[in-house]
Amino acid sequence: MDGGGSNLKVVEESSRPKVRFSHAGLRILALALTLVASILAGVDKETKVLSVALIKTLPPVQVPVTAKWQYLSAFVYFVVANAIACSYAATSLIFLMVAGRCFRHSTSSLALVMLDLIITVFLFSAEGAAIGVGLIGRDGNSHVLWNKVCNVFEGFCRHMTAAVILSLLGSFVFLWLVVLSIVNLHKKSMETEGKN
Amino acid sequence: MDGGGSNLKVVEESSRPKVRFSHAGLRILALALTLVASILAGVDKETKVLSVALIKTLPPVQVPVTAKWQYLSAFVYFVVANAIACSYAATSLIFLMVAGRCFRHSTSSLALVMLDLIITVFLFSAEGAAIGVGLIGRDGNSHVLWNKVCNVFEGFCRHMTAAVILSLLGSFVFLWLVVLSIVNLHKKSMETEGKN
Repeated sequence: MDGGGSNLKVVEESSRPKVRFSHAGLRILALALTLVASILAGVDKETKVLSVALIKTLPPVQVPVTAKWQYLSAFVYFVVANAIACSYAATSLIFLMVAGRCFRHSTSSLALVMLDLIITVFLFSAEGAAIGVGLIGRDGNSHVLWNKVCNVFEGFCRHMTAAVILSLLGSFVFLWLVVLSIVNLHKKSMETEGKN
Repeated sequence: MDGGGSNLKVVEESSRPKVRFSHAGLRILALALTLVASILAGVDKETKVLSVALIKTLPPVQVPVTAKWQYLSAFVYFVVANAIACSYAATSLIFLMVAGRCFRHSTSSLALVMLDLIITVFLFSAEGAAIGVGLIGRDGNSHVLWNKVCNVFEGFCRHMTAAVILSLLGSFVFLWLVVLSIVNLHKKSMETEGKN
């Protein structure tokens, strides 16, 4: 029986670096996705020259109009949330590298799951805001007389859509990290139940 | 030493119903908050009669205009998300009552944490969408020529704001349920670490 127990311990020990590596890999993926999303949305800007007839008898005036993410609070929230998420992914990755083997023994693993959880809900709320406003930009809304803008600023909307898709993927990676942590904690707690 | 161990077990056993009770209490609170939020938003409707001058030489025409949550996809998403969250809170509550003591031994506790987590991110994304669009309704946006509508439909906006606040509180209760579950699992896993 003792021999079986030590074999199990050897298997557990050898599988731990793999778990840590997969966690680090997911964090790098989340970092890359939210970084590209925040850059794509952050540099998104398009200027178009529109013909506007101020007085019917005069020829139309050429007016340059610009679309920027700073003009809509939902997009500002989206860019800020992605920037924070990507900074957090980088910080937590450095922490995981530095903490190394001491990590699993400390309560900082609990803090890391909590922070992952907060970043996940933060990102999902920002994506909800960006998609909600983005859909009005794409389709307009006749009931409240809000015109669509994506027929004019096609490039801006295309870039913002790409940023939202990348950010969504990033938030699902963060969600997956939380799910993995909960599954690992549950496995360990089941070991305790089995021993009692 | 044995006596001390059994004392500890008695304390643990007596504290478990309290934990289960607080979980059930939080679920009832989340159920109430999301139920009221979905009803408040779901019945939100306001009709105003506006004077519209179609031709300058003729007197203005009285046109009835209505604000409904169904007119904006973000609000539809918000109402659906809250209805699902409140139905889930009710179902999980019944499950907790029926499962009773068997619950903590089974892997269904893991499924419940996962579902709590999914409902939390779902609710936060819906609130993000509703707040993003709601802010444009309140303030308008001069850059994209979207007029504010809350100056006309004050009652509609007031009710929707109350619904969003209640839903936000509900989502924080769901988030707290996830946090509590993670903390409990972490405590148990630390017991395992201590025993190894």
